[in-house]
Amino acid sequence: MNIGLIGLGKMGLNLARHMIDDGYGVVGYDKYLKDDVKSLYPDITFIDQLESLLIKLEKPRVIWLMVPSGDATEQLINELSAILEPGDIMIDGGNSRYTDTTRRFNELKKREINFIDCGTSGGTEGARYGASLMVGGEKTVVESIKHLFEALAVKDGYAYMGSSGSGHFVKMVHNGIEYGMMQAIGEGFDLLNASQYDLDYKKVARVWANGSIIKGLLMDTVLSAFTKDQTLDDIVGKIDDSGEGQWTIEEALLLKVSIPVIAHALFTRYKSKDDDKFSEKVVAAMRNEFGGHKVYKK
Amino acid sequence: MNIGLIGLGKMGLNLARHMIDDGYGVVGYDKYLKDDVKSLYPDITFIDQLESLLIKLEKPRVIWLMVPSGDATEQLINELSAILEPGDIMIDGGNSRYTDTTRRFNELKKREINFIDCGTSGGTEGARYGASLMVGGEKTVVESIKHLFEALAVKDGYAYMGSSGSGHFVKMVHNGIEYGMMQAIGEGFDLLNASQYDLDYKKVARVWANGSIIKGLLMDTVLSAFTKDQTLDDIVGKIDDSGEGQWTIEEALLLKVSIPVIAHALFTRYKSKDDDKFSEKVVAAMRNEFGGHKVYKK
Repeated sequence: MNIGLIGLGKMGLNLARHMIDDGYGVVGYDKYLKDDVKSLYPDITFIDQLESLLIKLEKPRVIWLMVPSGDATEQLINELSAILEPGDIMIDGGNSRYTDTTRRFNELKKREINFIDCGTSGGTEGARYGASLMVGGEKTVVESIKHLFEALAVKDGYAYMGSSGSGHFVKMVHNGIEYGMMQAIGEGFDLLNASQYDLDYKKVARVWANGSIIKGLLMDTVLSAFTKDQTLDDIVGKIDDSGEGQWTIEEALLLKVSIPVIAHALFTRYKSKDDDKFSEKVVAAMRNEFGGHKVYKK
Repeated sequence: MNIGLIGLGKMGLNLARHMIDDGYGVVGYDKYLKDDVKSLYPDITFIDQLESLLIKLEKPRVIWLMVPSGDATEQLINELSAILEPGDIMIDGGNSRYTDTTRRFNELKKREINFIDCGTSGGTEGARYGASLMVGGEKTVVESIKHLFEALAVKDGYAYMGSSGSGHFVKMVHNGIEYGMMQAIGEGFDLLNASQYDLDYKKVARVWANGSIIKGLLMDTVLSAFTKDQTLDDIVGKIDDSGEGQWTIEEALLLKVSIPVIAHALFTRYKSKDDDKFSEKVVAAMRNEFGGHKVYKK
């Protein structure tokens, strides 16, 4: 069976290789992919225009999108929606906001094109060797290509979550949790760093990654980072956020659910990039005004 | 080689069985252990008074304490310190506060008794089949019984952290991180619970525990809990804390390190047991005073 794979970045290319390992044929499309990269993957059938999917894929066509959320996903879905036929299946494996997903599902439904949302976790390694897949959409449609999700997930790493958007919703919350867990780990290392002990962070991470209650993939990444650089001197302490954390907080506000740790983890990322520190200036100025406390001058 | 093991609760008994599996003899002492429990462990040599350790163990004697931190540990160390001889080695495998550990180290040093702190993580399963061990104390002394730590830890799960107290310090921070990670996970499920989707938490936990970025031992425990009870209806939402979380915050205050997520996780535990909600009453009353906003009356 051939799968159309749109978006051949790190995640997409690894998914393609995984699909090929599992016996699927892959028809790949990525208008930004260079020819010299394409030449490294002789097993992938590269196409230059989306229309080629119509002849390269068996009906009903199965097309997996692995592109950045937002405009890139929106535009591709619009283009595909214009050429696909009733019964075809589009899977959004990216990190789209679940409200976008349900909107797209309803729009595509009118044209009888099936739309599945697949929250994909596990990073590039997961895409290559086995991911965690949270899938939403119409149950019968999902069931019809369950074999693909099961092939790409690790054992027990795939589940059907429910109606359209639920896969991306659960993935969004997963990312919120990830923000909170990462922040807790970061704070712990800050405390180790301030202590009287001359600790070897690589050793600490190694022991925490093996046999402890806080072991897991995140701790493995900490160990990997300290193995490359004992002090992380080469890394600047500024953290980007890629959307899902913010959406998680926005969802919590909408549903009036208290998620202070996840919120604080996101706010810490914002603050990490705030060189101006205006709020701190305001507070320092107020202390000076009411109590004559020292302010640090430029 | 025989090891004296003081404190035969769930952790101690599992450590004893682990030691026996690895070829050590275990001389066990626990004044609270019932005879019918003792009869289940014919491989352990049970003693009724600490003095028996003197004849049952080879010199230098190695004694592992696995008792609750605080008074129980303090009292046992005092009793042992009165009977042990220069060169003997005491290991505190419990969750003692690291400042208590360094004090005890210095006191025992005067009597030439060696004192090692061993932060032990991995729960009862870890104690039985392989734990994560963070060890502090005099390097030569730790090296002399490194074989015991290596036998009890999982592969790569043991490391010497540094001078006295460093093992318990690193374990304390580990527990602080654990609080933060657990709170992030709890908040995520709160959000799932409030969503429009009828989610199966066991399925969500299963997928998150397999192949995802947030997989790890903590997510395994969530899966296990939801496997036993799909809705956790039988569990009351009140969370105890056992000291290390609070010590982590106290240490952060002492060192002036910002650890808001870990602090919030601890405060959430306090609040979970606060049925009176006095601060909430104060805020509700103020809203009523200045704006005539509704207060809920008893």
